[in-house]
Amino acid sequence: MNNLDRERLKILQDKINRMDPVDIAERLEDLSKEDTAIWIKLLKKDLLADAFSLLPRDKKIEMIGSLSEDRIMSLMKELEEDEVVDTLQELPANMVRKFMNQYIEEDRRPIINELLGFPKDSVGSIMSVGFIFVKSTATPTQALEKIIHSDLDADRLEQVWVTNQSLVLIGYVNLADLLRNKNKNIEEFMHPINASVYATDDQEVVAKLAFKYDLSEIPVTDSEGRLVGIVPAEWAIDVMHEEYEEDLGNIHGISESSPEHYWDKSVFRLAKDRTMWLIICLVTATFTSFIIKRYEALLASSVALAAYIPMLMDSGGNAGTQSSTTVIRGIYTGEIEFKEFVQVMFKELRIGIIVGLILVIVNIVRMSILDSVSLGVTLTVSVTLLTTIVLSKIIGGILPLIAEKTHVDPTIMAGPLITTIVDTLVLFVYFEVATILLGV
Amino acid sequence: MNNLDRERLKILQDKINRMDPVDIAERLEDLSKEDTAIWIKLLKKDLLADAFSLLPRDKKIEMIGSLSEDRIMSLMKELEEDEVVDTLQELPANMVRKFMNQYIEEDRRPIINELLGFPKDSVGSIMSVGFIFVKSTATPTQALEKIIHSDLDADRLEQVWVTNQSLVLIGYVNLADLLRNKNKNIEEFMHPINASVYATDDQEVVAKLAFKYDLSEIPVTDSEGRLVGIVPAEWAIDVMHEEYEEDLGNIHGISESSPEHYWDKSVFRLAKDRTMWLIICLVTATFTSFIIKRYEALLASSVALAAYIPMLMDSGGNAGTQSSTTVIRGIYTGEIEFKEFVQVMFKELRIGIIVGLILVIVNIVRMSILDSVSLGVTLTVSVTLLTTIVLSKIIGGILPLIAEKTHVDPTIMAGPLITTIVDTLVLFVYFEVATILLGV
Repeated sequence: MNNLDRERLKILQDKINRMDPVDIAERLEDLSKEDTAIWIKLLKKDLLADAFSLLPRDKKIEMIGSLSEDRIMSLMKELEEDEVVDTLQELPANMVRKFMNQYIEEDRRPIINELLGFPKDSVGSIMSVGFIFVKSTATPTQALEKIIHSDLDADRLEQVWVTNQSLVLIGYVNLADLLRNKNKNIEEFMHPINASVYATDDQEVVAKLAFKYDLSEIPVTDSEGRLVGIVPAEWAIDVMHEEYEEDLGNIHGISESSPEHYWDKSVFRLAKDRTMWLIICLVTATFTSFIIKRYEALLASSVALAAYIPMLMDSGGNAGTQSSTTVIRGIYTGEIEFKEFVQVMFKELRIGIIVGLILVIVNIVRMSILDSVSLGVTLTVSVTLLTTIVLSKIIGGILPLIAEKTHVDPTIMAGPLITTIVDTLVLFVYFEVATILLGV
Repeated sequence: MNNLDRERLKILQDKINRMDPVDIAERLEDLSKEDTAIWIKLLKKDLLADAFSLLPRDKKIEMIGSLSEDRIMSLMKELEEDEVVDTLQELPANMVRKFMNQYIEEDRRPIINELLGFPKDSVGSIMSVGFIFVKSTATPTQALEKIIHSDLDADRLEQVWVTNQSLVLIGYVNLADLLRNKNKNIEEFMHPINASVYATDDQEVVAKLAFKYDLSEIPVTDSEGRLVGIVPAEWAIDVMHEEYEEDLGNIHGISESSPEHYWDKSVFRLAKDRTMWLIICLVTATFTSFIIKRYEALLASSVALAAYIPMLMDSGGNAGTQSSTTVIRGIYTGEIEFKEFVQVMFKELRIGIIVGLILVIVNIVRMSILDSVSLGVTLTVSVTLLTTIVLSKIIGGILPLIAEKTHVDPTIMAGPLITTIVDTLVLFVYFEVATILLGV
C-alpha cells in the first residue's frame, strides 16, 4: 500500500466515522463484499455495531459470514441485549445455538434467553434492558455515582428509575434534577409513575401510552411492579409507524409480512401479498351477482335502473368506510368503547339521515338536469340512496366495535368487508324498492 | 370550613398533585366551575400549567375567565413559550393583544411574537425554544454549570448542543457523557449532527426524521445553521399521529378540521365533515351512469352482463387502492420518487398481469360452478377482469406519484378519486369487450 492509498483510506475513515449509523447501514447495503470489508476495518467498533443492528437480514448474515470469530465476538459485545436478540432471531435456526455458546458472553445469556422468549410484536420483544435504578432512600449523589460508573449508552441514562424497598417501581428522576438538587431527598423531586406496560403486552400499547402521556421513556414492569425494561420514545415512533403500516395494509386488503422495500420485493412476492384479499372479495361478490340475477326480469323490463347501480354502490361503500374510519380512530384513542354500541348506532343513524337527505337532494337535481327518466326511477333511486347511506353509516360504525370485542383487528373490517356487505344490501334494497314503486 | 372539610381537601390535594397532567386535564374537562376552582387552588403551579396547556380551547377560555389577573400572570409564567403561543392562538383575536401586553413578561414577548409568525403545521409552530448550547471550546464542567443553573424543565436538559465559534450547530453531547468525561474535550465525545430541520419546514419532516434516525431530540436551525429550537421525540409522536389521522381521513374522504372527539362533536358537524366527498363522488358517478346508458341496448339484449358489474368494479377499486397504498408508503419513507415513474408503471403492470390471471382462473371456476351463462359472457367477464386489474394497478401506482409531483397530498388520491376513475374505465372496457365478443 503506497502513501497515496493510505492517505485516501484515512480520508474515508474520517468521513465514515462521522456518519450516522442509519446512513452507514444504508450505504453498506449497496457496497460490494470488498468495499464492505474495508468499511468494517475502518469503522469504530461501536459505530459498526450500531450500523450492523440496522441492516436487513441477508446483509447481516453475509457480514457475519465474512468476519473472523474474534471480530464476531467483539461485534456481539458492542450490541445491546435487544439488538443481539433481533440478530439471533434473524439467523438460520441451526446457527443460533452455536452463536449463543460461542460468541455471547456467559453472563449475558440468561437475559438474552429471556428476551428471546417474548412473542413477536410484544413489548418484551422490543424493550431495552439498559436502565439504572436506585431505591428511594438513596441520595442524589449515590444515584449520580451509579450513572458515572455505568457502561450504558448515555442516551439510556437520561433518567434514573426509583423503587421502594421491595424494588417496586414508584417513580423516576431526571439526571439534570439530580445535579440541581444534590442536597434534597430524591422523593422531593421524583416524578411518580402514571403509566407503565407489561413485557407481554402488545407493542401497540407502548405507542398509545407514549402518545397520550408524552413520555420520553415508557417503563416495562413485571406483574409485581418491578422494572424489567424500558422503551424510549424514539422507539415508540417506530412501533407507531409499523402499526400505521399494518392498519393501512389491513384497510386496503394487503397481507404483508414486512411492509417495506417496494423495490427489493419481487413482482411475485408483491402479487402474493395482494391476491388473497382480492380473491376473497371476488368470491363474496357472488352475493351481489346472485341478487342481480334474481331480479333479472325486473332489470330487463327497466334497463334504466342499471345506470344507477355504480353510484349507489360507491356512495354506500364510501359512507360506510367514513364511519368505520372515525370509529376505529375513536377505539384507538380510547374515546369509543364497546359498551357505547347503542350510542354509536344512534349517532350514526342521525348522521346518516342528514347526509343521506343532502345527497338525495343533490342527486335529484343532478338527475333532472342530466337524465330523462321516469318519476318512478327517480323516486326509486332516491329512496335507495337514503336507505343506503343510513345503513352503511350504521354498519360502518358498529362493525369495528364488534371486531374489537371479538379481538379481531378493527382495521380488517374497515375495507373490503364493509364494501361487500354494503354492496349486497344496496342492491337488495334497490330492487325491492323498484319492485314496489315501479310495480313490475 | 370545619376540620372534616379541611381533612378532605388535604386528601384531595395530595391525590391530585400526584396525578399526571394528562389525567388532570381529562378530569378538569368534566368538572363543574366550582370544582374546577377548587382544583385550581389545590394544584401546584407547575402541574396546573402543564394540565392547562392540554385543555381544549373552550375550557382554556372558561378557566382564564374565572382567574384573577395575578393568577393568569403566574400561569403564563409557568407555561413554556410554545405553550403560550398555542394558548394565544386559541384566544379570540381581540384578547390576544391585551394578553401579550398585560400577562406576558416583556423579555419573553419577542420570541413569542416570532413563534406566533410561523404557519400552522410548520415545525416552528410546534418546536420548543427551551434548550442549552455551548461552544465546542467549552469544558464539560462549564457545560454542567450551565445545566445546574438553568431554569428549564429537566426533560429539556438531556442533551447540550454544541456550536462552533460562529454559533453554527455542529453536534450535541449527552448529559451523562459530560459527567463521565469531565477531563476530556467536548469534541471527543460529541455526536455530530446528521439531521436537522428548518422552522419553516412542514411538521411532517420532523416525524420522518425522528422515525428514520431514532433521535431523542430533533434540532431546528435557521438558514445559517444556528439552532433556533428543538422538537423532542415525544412530540414527534404527536405529529406522526396527527399526520396518520389526516392520511386516514383523506383516504376515506373525511374533511376534518380536528379529527378527534367523536362524542363532543355534534351530529351536524360530523355530517358536514363527511358530506363533501360523498357529493363529489355522487356527481362524478355521472360518468359511470353515462356509460351504462350509452350501452343500454347491449345490456337489454344481454341482461346477464349486469350481474358481474359489482364484482368487476369492486375488484378494480380494491386492486387500485392496494397499489396506491403501497406507493404512498414508499413515498413517505423516501423509497419511491417521481423519477421512478416508469419503473413503478412497469412493476405494477407485471404485478397486475400475475394477480389478474390468478383472479381470472378463480373466477372462471366460480362461474362454472355457480352460474350457467354462455361462453361469450364468461369470456367477456374474464377479459374485462384481467384488463381491469392491470389498469387499476397502474393507475393506483402512478396517481400518488403525480400527486406528490404536483404538491397534492397523495393520500387524497388514494381513496374516492381512484375508485371513480377505475369504475368508469371498468365499465367502458366491459361493454366494449362485450360488443366485440357477443357481437351484439
